Amino acid sequence: MDSDILREGEQLDDLGRENFRLIQRKDRFRFGMDAVLLAAFARVHARERVIDLGTGTGVIPILMRARYQCRSFTGLELDAVSADMALRSVRFNGLEEDIRIVCGDIRNTRELFEPGSFDVVTSNPPYMTVGSGAPPKDEPVAGARHEYFCTLEDTVKAAAYLLREQGRLYLVHRPMRLAQIICMLVRYRLEPKRMQLVYPNISGEPNLVLIECRKGGGQGLRMDPPLIVYVEDGKYTGQLLEIYYGE
Amino acid sequence: MDSDILREGEQLDDLGRENFRLIQRKDRFRFGMDAVLLAAFARVHARERVIDLGTGTGVIPILMRARYQCRSFTGLELDAVSADMALRSVRFNGLEEDIRIVCGDIRNTRELFEPGSFDVVTSNPPYMTVGSGAPPKDEPVAGARHEYFCTLEDTVKAAAYLLREQGRLYLVHRPMRLAQIICMLVRYRLEPKRMQLVYPNISGEPNLVLIECRKGGGQGLRMDPPLIVYVEDGKYTGQLLEIYYGE
Repeated sequence: MDSDILREGEQLDDLGRENFRLIQRKDRFRFGMDAVLLAAFARVHARERVIDLGTGTGVIPILMRARYQCRSFTGLELDAVSADMALRSVRFNGLEEDIRIVCGDIRNTRELFEPGSFDVVTSNPPYMTVGSGAPPKDEPVAGARHEYFCTLEDTVKAAAYLLREQGRLYLVHRPMRLAQIICMLVRYRLEPKRMQLVYPNISGEPNLVLIECRKGGGQGLRMDPPLIVYVEDGKYTGQLLEIYYGE
Repeated sequence: MDSDILREGEQLDDLGRENFRLIQRKDRFRFGMDAVLLAAFARVHARERVIDLGTGTGVIPILMRARYQCRSFTGLELDAVSADMALRSVRFNGLEEDIRIVCGDIRNTRELFEPGSFDVVTSNPPYMTVGSGAPPKDEPVAGARHEYFCTLEDTVKAAAYLLREQGRLYLVHRPMRLAQIICMLVRYRLEPKRMQLVYPNISGEPNLVLIECRKGGGQGLRMDPPLIVYVEDGKYTGQLLEIYYGE
């Protein structure tokens, strides 16, 4: 059966929830822990309309579909190869009615969607600015990791356009860029309301930050307890096991 | 001997370092863990000129004098009663040559000091805006906890004025206000460069944030490992004991 839906170089990975699978390619960007953490950090309700910006192979909408009561997801992806894999994963899991994949440019959001047409935006954007050490722009993974086709401002601007007033943005990013992220969010009236730092272990520096913002929200940030990934001997903490496999 | 230097209602508290003591009053604002954590988080070198904004009873300059090689501290305090206690503590500890206490208003910084005349600014400012639940303005502790006489912007503006280019600000505050703090710092060209969250315990929400900024610094924030105060049974963690009593 797998051979019917998979193309050359593709594999079918188990998402660990509802028997959902995801088509990925070894030579392209594959989802990491950040996508799993974002899907668990986000909170969406039934009847909310959710869009994932830069959805890649669609892992975030599929994980959120498994996790929440919500049944209205859109995944926007620029790269046609990734968008095609996302679409086939949606079909393979029988989720065509719940998840729509749109191949399009986040910088053209205004031409693709109505303003304020979503309750929730999620995004796991490229973390790194384009500078020294960046791979060539035409490498398949370049755009997923570096801001060649989508800067932090592109993401924030698109989210501000797409969200209804009081709608929520859920973002995962690098703490290294936190000051810039917060200033950008506030500039676009996306007030940070909840934040969690992800520490690889209890004595390590955090390597991810999860942020919930509210469009037009008032000041006041709630910080969650630390999210610690590994116990000292390299095994996942109970927190992480709960996120990956818990109900 | 204590009775000679203490006035009515005052007590002499041991700072746990170099036998330094601090005069405090029970009916006024007394220093808490935040001051101790800030003194440990800050990094100052010999020959640097350091000013503490809103120094209260002078705990931060005295703790830093004990901890670092630096010998040039200024403590600025609006409240005359607190400034007088700070001055007498400085004398009691024999630190007159190293710590100068100035009774004055942070909002008049331009009249008190030359621009760019300090390498380092420290501050443990009032955390809370003036709103519902605030004590009357004339209560002795009101100004230390609430922004009656010194807003976040007053502190940041004064620091930006006092620091030389590339000088550092060390601030302790509440995570609740982090978004506002970061935006304010960036607006005054005080780029956040290092940050640490203080969690009461490993599964609790952080209740303090320590921030190092650099005047005119480039983007890029380093986040420290989590600072965890108590182990689950209510005793201090090794980290905290090290900060309080370590070398």
